[in-house]
Amino acid sequence: MLKIAVAGASGYTGGELLRLLAQHPYVQVVSVTSERSSGRPVAEIFPYLKGFYDLTLQPLNTKAITEKAEFIFAALPHGSSIGAVSDFIEMGKRVVDLSADFRLKDPLLYEEWYGLKHSNKALLDMAVYGLPEVYRVKIKGAQLVANPGCYPTAAILALAPLLKNRIVSREHIYIDAKSAISGAGRLPALPYHFPEAHEGMEAYKAGTHRHTPEIEQVLSEISRAPMHVCFVPHLIPANRGLLCTVYAPAAFDGDAADIVAIYKEFYHDEPFVRVLEAGRQPNIRDVRGANFCDIGIALDKRNGCIIVTSAIDNLVKGAAGAAIQNMNIMMGFEETAGLKQPGLFP
Amino acid sequence: MLKIAVAGASGYTGGELLRLLAQHPYVQVVSVTSERSSGRPVAEIFPYLKGFYDLTLQPLNTKAITEKAEFIFAALPHGSSIGAVSDFIEMGKRVVDLSADFRLKDPLLYEEWYGLKHSNKALLDMAVYGLPEVYRVKIKGAQLVANPGCYPTAAILALAPLLKNRIVSREHIYIDAKSAISGAGRLPALPYHFPEAHEGMEAYKAGTHRHTPEIEQVLSEISRAPMHVCFVPHLIPANRGLLCTVYAPAAFDGDAADIVAIYKEFYHDEPFVRVLEAGRQPNIRDVRGANFCDIGIALDKRNGCIIVTSAIDNLVKGAAGAAIQNMNIMMGFEETAGLKQPGLFP
Amino acid sequence: MLKIAVAGASGYTGGELLRLLAQHPYVQVVSVTSERSSGRPVAEIFPYLKGFYDLTLQPLNTKAITEKAEFIFAALPHGSSIGAVSDFIEMGKRVVDLSADFRLKDPLLYEEWYGLKHSNKALLDMAVYGLPEVYRVKIKGAQLVANPGCYPTAAILALAPLLKNRIVSREHIYIDAKSAISGAGRLPALPYHFPEAHEGMEAYKAGTHRHTPEIEQVLSEISRAPMHVCFVPHLIPANRGLLCTVYAPAAFDGDAADIVAIYKEFYHDEPFVRVLEAGRQPNIRDVRGANFCDIGIALDKRNGCIIVTSAIDNLVKGAAGAAIQNMNIMMGFEETAGLKQPGLFP
Amino acid sequence: MLKIAVAGASGYTGGELLRLLAQHPYVQVVSVTSERSSGRPVAEIFPYLKGFYDLTLQPLNTKAITEKAEFIFAALPHGSSIGAVSDFIEMGKRVVDLSADFRLKDPLLYEEWYGLKHSNKALLDMAVYGLPEVYRVKIKGAQLVANPGCYPTAAILALAPLLKNRIVSREHIYIDAKSAISGAGRLPALPYHFPEAHEGMEAYKAGTHRHTPEIEQVLSEISRAPMHVCFVPHLIPANRGLLCTVYAPAAFDGDAADIVAIYKEFYHDEPFVRVLEAGRQPNIRDVRGANFCDIGIALDKRNGCIIVTSAIDNLVKGAAGAAIQNMNIMMGFEETAGLKQPGLFP
Repeated sequence: MLKIAVAGASGYTGGELLRLLAQHPYVQVVSVTSERSSGRPVAEIFPYLKGFYDLTLQPLNTKAITEKAEFIFAALPHGSSIGAVSDFIEMGKRVVDLSADFRLKDPLLYEEWYGLKHSNKALLDMAVYGLPEVYRVKIKGAQLVANPGCYPTAAILALAPLLKNRIVSREHIYIDAKSAISGAGRLPALPYHFPEAHEGMEAYKAGTHRHTPEIEQVLSEISRAPMHVCFVPHLIPANRGLLCTVYAPAAFDGDAADIVAIYKEFYHDEPFVRVLEAGRQPNIRDVRGANFCDIGIALDKRNGCIIVTSAIDNLVKGAAGAAIQNMNIMMGFEETAGLKQPGLFP
Repeated sequence: MLKIAVAGASGYTGGELLRLLAQHPYVQVVSVTSERSSGRPVAEIFPYLKGFYDLTLQPLNTKAITEKAEFIFAALPHGSSIGAVSDFIEMGKRVVDLSADFRLKDPLLYEEWYGLKHSNKALLDMAVYGLPEVYRVKIKGAQLVANPGCYPTAAILALAPLLKNRIVSREHIYIDAKSAISGAGRLPALPYHFPEAHEGMEAYKAGTHRHTPEIEQVLSEISRAPMHVCFVPHLIPANRGLLCTVYAPAAFDGDAADIVAIYKEFYHDEPFVRVLEAGRQPNIRDVRGANFCDIGIALDKRNGCIIVTSAIDNLVKGAAGAAIQNMNIMMGFEETAGLKQPGLFP
Repeated sequence: MLKIAVAGASGYTGGELLRLLAQHPYVQVVSVTSERSSGRPVAEIFPYLKGFYDLTLQPLNTKAITEKAEFIFAALPHGSSIGAVSDFIEMGKRVVDLSADFRLKDPLLYEEWYGLKHSNKALLDMAVYGLPEVYRVKIKGAQLVANPGCYPTAAILALAPLLKNRIVSREHIYIDAKSAISGAGRLPALPYHFPEAHEGMEAYKAGTHRHTPEIEQVLSEISRAPMHVCFVPHLIPANRGLLCTVYAPAAFDGDAADIVAIYKEFYHDEPFVRVLEAGRQPNIRDVRGANFCDIGIALDKRNGCIIVTSAIDNLVKGAAGAAIQNMNIMMGFEETAGLKQPGLFP
Repeated sequence: MLKIAVAGASGYTGGELLRLLAQHPYVQVVSVTSERSSGRPVAEIFPYLKGFYDLTLQPLNTKAITEKAEFIFAALPHGSSIGAVSDFIEMGKRVVDLSADFRLKDPLLYEEWYGLKHSNKALLDMAVYGLPEVYRVKIKGAQLVANPGCYPTAAILALAPLLKNRIVSREHIYIDAKSAISGAGRLPALPYHFPEAHEGMEAYKAGTHRHTPEIEQVLSEISRAPMHVCFVPHLIPANRGLLCTVYAPAAFDGDAADIVAIYKEFYHDEPFVRVLEAGRQPNIRDVRGANFCDIGIALDKRNGCIIVTSAIDNLVKGAAGAAIQNMNIMMGFEETAGLKQPGLFP
């Protein structure tokens, strides 16, 4: 059994890692950290886990962790992850980092969008962007994997086959994303207070969300040319689920079924991408709790526009599930280990 | 007191008309019809109206209605409205029709999108499209007003100032709309069954929704040139509310505050459009139960894209409230009569 | 126009007072206070009220308020209301207090349940418990009215006819209450954080909730004998609505229709109590946004148990609506002024 | 691998069986039936199961099923289960029946509450009531197990330790139950139409629900004396979850912690019952998707009343999970096989 630490275990991503790892056949969680909840047993801050873990949350102590654990999931806040991860890497551990600290290859971009100077450029060079559908080979050998953001995962998986096959223009691409509220984290704040959020919906950070450069970095690599996208996220009144609706001008003569065929081929061997038939659109409810990304295609011939919608669970394929998938690849486990369960419906 | 009939009163739009008319100072509802619920008192099919109406639902009988009522709201299914409205008009009544039967000026478009031949071209010519912010003067003199669809209302109000002032291109315009589930009507069906819809979200009729030609007809008139838009609606797990996120390529040099100023001027005298300051986006919760359309502006300079979001209550400004606003204009009442209440929050 | 102040206007009860007062024909709000949001315009903390109020929130200054306002709604936190209300009363103003500070006649009970010594016994003696259906005559002449808690309102209205008519035992009475989350207030905290509360439900303060002695005080007066009830509240995943299910051993031979007749007689002249026919149970959705209390009766003959369910909107009949009803009675306005609107459905 | 058939697989219980069985280590589903959806692949009626089953739904044909399957879950409507199960039993198969047809030992009670004569008394005698916490030994040897109703499971588990240990009276016991809407099944109908149910809540069948005699049958056995309970279910706006709040007059001198100790002892070896510490109440969110029953205890000393709340997922411990637990016991698998996952939170 691989010995695992989860650094930053008291948020929703941490809890989701613990949920999924409890069902993983080859691992054992030996250490969990939290500053805010240190000293409290896991089952107290996550009553749904009562009976699954005997661990107590500890303040983050990288030395203590590396003594116990062989593999580390770091689910720390942006900015504070760099230091801890440096320690883990130095002590020879393998790490999946779920913050944004190692996603952007260009430290200037990181500075521009996150307002922080990046203090460990070497680590940045070493980190592999953990989207298996695009970077699986690199992930296999990586010591440090930067787990993608939830929006980038859904957006990139929706666009990759179009750009790779050059059947859309690289301009005028719009990504309209809708996220459930767990994506905002577990810290209470007015916009996420139940009566404010329930029966509510709004756009936020229109055109300025930090996931934008991350999406652009990967899409530029896929299309082998620098490109920009207009990205607008929205908050919807649900616990889990993220839907991206992508609009891209078609450079292509076929119909929707042809595009579906291209997607099916592109994702043919992927265990966690399900391409729907033409005319069907995915629903976030069908991936709830599961590691799937469901994708649907439509073609608006009147406007020459390809419309792709992709649905993930923001906490699974958008965070903890993807992190475990990355660990499986890094460790040579079968890639679906611990991730085989269907979604929870209804 | 103006004597009112509501033809087709057992759906959500009918119920919403009854809710709002109960508070209107100058009208009295004297007749309500429903085929499915005929013979039942209003308070039985709408328990929230207990104590407000002594009326019993009757099968639709246009002669009987015109004997009692001076003004008619027709909330009948698409296709079946034409016949009834013909009768009302012939008998000299004034009518606001809430179906789609009189919205499209071109009967061929109607046939193409609704699959029905239009049987009364004369009536079509006579009907005025009931969006006061664009057609107020015509509405004043109209005998028949075609009440706009919910999506067109939000989409057109979001785009009108941009097109009128020619600060966006007329191409590559995308409308990503999100509607609460009451928009699907009151007839139970699997996709709207609570456990299927709750914690669910999906796109539907991507690029093929019937409100598309209605949006295009009005935008073409505003911009004085034929234009198309790519329109994708989504269903979100809420009772009321409709949000449109509109993407349009900027043909303009200013910043977001300049665009806000243009919107404020455009909607300066409008009692039901509230333009938010730059950087703020409207939330459907703030228009719940109210006749407002709240509009927010963002400018994505990196992509040269103007992003406008507009929020309405699909049953009020998107249906019953707009219908009453139209009646007020037609009858010479103050335009806000019966519509002055703020939204219900939380 | 009566000049009104709302002291403590930034919470949900404050916001609801402002929503309802905006539609009241005989009043004008001239002053609003908030410590946390002082300096901010009403429309900023309550965007749904944009266009309705030009007021800016001020820190609480009782002298300044009494110079402007003739009538005061105090929606301050428990404990901090006593001082402010003392000032208002001293300066001859009439006050509806929405805190718990003047509800319990016995200061020892207040101390026992709220952990605070009551500093103004004279004011306590002067205060009238503001449940019009029980104390209307006293309210009429009152200078200070203690607005009931949301749970007591629903529980007492459900039980009053049974106890008054002595058709139930005064022992073994159980009140199982379910409240929507706005009842917990507007201050963000983990249990009300959207993802924690949505799809969640739990009992809380079982047998120990502070509304218990308030319910018992009024029921004891109605039944003219001291009595206790077992009261357990629950939190349900909704914005608004409170349902009480009351279980009482029948001391009575009739059937459910007989009990319904007793309720209809008891509430015959009440404008805001709607008694349903036997076999029907009220639903919180039918009182959403309205000042009604809907009541349904069932009789479990096998167990000799009368079951009554009562539904209110916790923010309207359970708080702000009741407060306005009390003001109407105190001021000699028609009792329903500003409160005539039906609920918002769906 | 044990070959499994699911008869009646297109409802929520059927879907939940398929979800859980997909993760079970010792079984394989070989046959699924549905009248309404026959001819359609599983993944079409349950898109969340795409990739997990290649089966197509067939009309119910008991002969065909018994040729393929060794073990059968019957999730058929009440009344129509008797015939099919008779066939299965006759052909020597082992069956867990999820309908109500074999739960009540007394056919007269069945007739009284379900309005149907029971056509197979012998089968009724043979059936074992499948609540492992009470009847585990009998289940082990059973050929036919009647899977408990969702309400009885939560109610009985809440009351069993009290009655077994005689620390409550057997009279004046009240069960106030709250169920999520998936409990109403997958057939669309107006009360479960999203906009009707969302932000709604009501009691239904107060004192007359069919689960009442089932609860009473088991409680009478536990307490070794005939007893009645007053049972009132409610519908709450959530997908999954069932909470029972049980009120029972204490015949006992200790405090809440003593009662907790009794529960902990009673459920000491139970893998799926989690007893919370005194003062804590369970939340349905913590058992979502899991086979647990969480139980909390409170003692209202003022009223001499013990209050117990129990939370289950109505589709898991209240239906499909319990059925699999029963199968595990019947087949000699470890009892937790396929049921080890924690709940899904948030």
